[in-house]
Amino acid sequence: MPSPEFELIQRYFSRHDAAPEIVLGIGDDCALARVPAGMELAMTVDTMVEGVHFPRHTAPFDIGYKALAVNLSDLASMGARPAWFTLALTLPRNDPDWLAGFSEGLHALAGEHRIALVGGDTTRGPLSITIQAHGLVPAGEALLRRGARAGDLVAVSGTPGDAGLGLQLALGQRTTAVNADYLRARLDRPSPRVALGQRLRGIASACIDVSDGIAADLGHLLEASGVGADIELARLPLSEAFRQTFAGSPDWNLALTAGDDFELLFTVPPAREADLAALADVTVIGRIGADQGARFHLPQGGLMQLEQAGYDHFRSAP
Amino acid sequence: MPSPEFELIQRYFSRHDAAPEIVLGIGDDCALARVPAGMELAMTVDTMVEGVHFPRHTAPFDIGYKALAVNLSDLASMGARPAWFTLALTLPRNDPDWLAGFSEGLHALAGEHRIALVGGDTTRGPLSITIQAHGLVPAGEALLRRGARAGDLVAVSGTPGDAGLGLQLALGQRTTAVNADYLRARLDRPSPRVALGQRLRGIASACIDVSDGIAADLGHLLEASGVGADIELARLPLSEAFRQTFAGSPDWNLALTAGDDFELLFTVPPAREADLAALADVTVIGRIGADQGARFHLPQGGLMQLEQAGYDHFRSAP
Repeated sequence: MPSPEFELIQRYFSRHDAAPEIVLGIGDDCALARVPAGMELAMTVDTMVEGVHFPRHTAPFDIGYKALAVNLSDLASMGARPAWFTLALTLPRNDPDWLAGFSEGLHALAGEHRIALVGGDTTRGPLSITIQAHGLVPAGEALLRRGARAGDLVAVSGTPGDAGLGLQLALGQRTTAVNADYLRARLDRPSPRVALGQRLRGIASACIDVSDGIAADLGHLLEASGVGADIELARLPLSEAFRQTFAGSPDWNLALTAGDDFELLFTVPPAREADLAALADVTVIGRIGADQGARFHLPQGGLMQLEQAGYDHFRSAP
Repeated sequence: MPSPEFELIQRYFSRHDAAPEIVLGIGDDCALARVPAGMELAMTVDTMVEGVHFPRHTAPFDIGYKALAVNLSDLASMGARPAWFTLALTLPRNDPDWLAGFSEGLHALAGEHRIALVGGDTTRGPLSITIQAHGLVPAGEALLRRGARAGDLVAVSGTPGDAGLGLQLALGQRTTAVNADYLRARLDRPSPRVALGQRLRGIASACIDVSDGIAADLGHLLEASGVGADIELARLPLSEAFRQTFAGSPDWNLALTAGDDFELLFTVPPAREADLAALADVTVIGRIGADQGARFHLPQGGLMQLEQAGYDHFRSAP
């Protein structure tokens, strides 16, 4: 971390006390941390580029919030407790107002989850944010994508599709929706399911976070596990805002293929069904089968044909 | 790591076997690692942006090599052994030739230092590379910036200034130099002093890597330690290429303020002077004193006035 970079980071990003595992935080060539005995370190890194991962003129608070949220969501999907993170921030110019808003959003979520910023780099260039988050998980207990078995239930947290509808509003592809503010908040300030992820340890057989849409992320989980799934769309938990916007005829394609929900999609063996019932805000939407692939059963009968599986940053940009 | 990202990374970046500490590498929402008992984890992150940190049309091999080298240099300056790293790569388009060259360069240095790529993210946008490197260091033995005391010797590895001369060549600011190929290599493929850093544990009282130039980085070390230094320019180890290019009248300002050398600058207590003598390729260039600030003594007598202390990516771009 050379000098000007350090000064920027020092000024805006050194507000929170370090986690107990941090031996040395911001200010030297490296940060130093200890990993408690019996714990494994979970690591994830995500980049957000202006014009690709968020529309231009997104509020800096929301950019900061979401840049950390997407990483915390990855930790949640492994059942890890957030511990510390680094920030690599590329900015077109040194803009104190932007930095103040961005760091407010970042610290709002960091404070909520007690995760400490331990280092980073600030460089000049087109706006882009890369965060690497580190979490701790008891050795051998991390939730992986590959553990689903035929007969397991498939469940999802929250109400998928809201962020996709929020993105249509943000891009002006849709001018009205029921409870538009709620839908925009679901896009701009997603709530990573950190507590749920940790509760799922010992209950879920496989888990992934929904960043690319249920269809694509279920596909990753099924592929890693070597199984298939039957999903009942009638059971898909849609928000009131989503249902009412579509006036009783939900856009299933949007609900299944829009990304940015950052809910958890997971499988549970039949023997753990009772544990599942005790969890708040999760819904069983189907069951794992031995036949490869995902089949989405329409409420009126028949199978749905998806128009686009997932969201490819190399093909399309919001 | 969503699907298209994962496929890119899988294809180009999964060649090396994982380190023994890696429980889970590329392919899930997070990587998982164990930190051996008695060890601390050292972490550093650096971003390189095209047109800011390297000239446009730099060979992709060199970009990959250097993006990892600058991070390994930070690990070296703490006395850490490289262990694993993540890669966040932002590309304007999916360019197989560029990716092949980039990953060759990255893996050339990764293989040399036996550091494993464990995860990452690939996104579309202006060319930018963020690497976070992780190293391991025995608990309590990391080399910090803040340990220098009055009376300590100041030493540097290698021959600083070569990369600065190489950059002048790369930018066309200078058309000829003695051994131009060597100088360009020093800019494009710096050798992080990983082995030296680990040997300095228990010998050096403070250490920093020279990324912004000796003057600026010595300044960071002195500030962190609350001391000053007297440096004898006559003792500065300049390469033959550097000396001959300036025909006996070295550009001291360039040697002291050009960045990108990635040598180690460190201090050694008088009691460890014998250990210092046993190290290859290091040169004593001065001594720590109690008076704040750095004083650069010219060979002909008198103090040098620096024109620019360090390299500020927010002020100037190569």
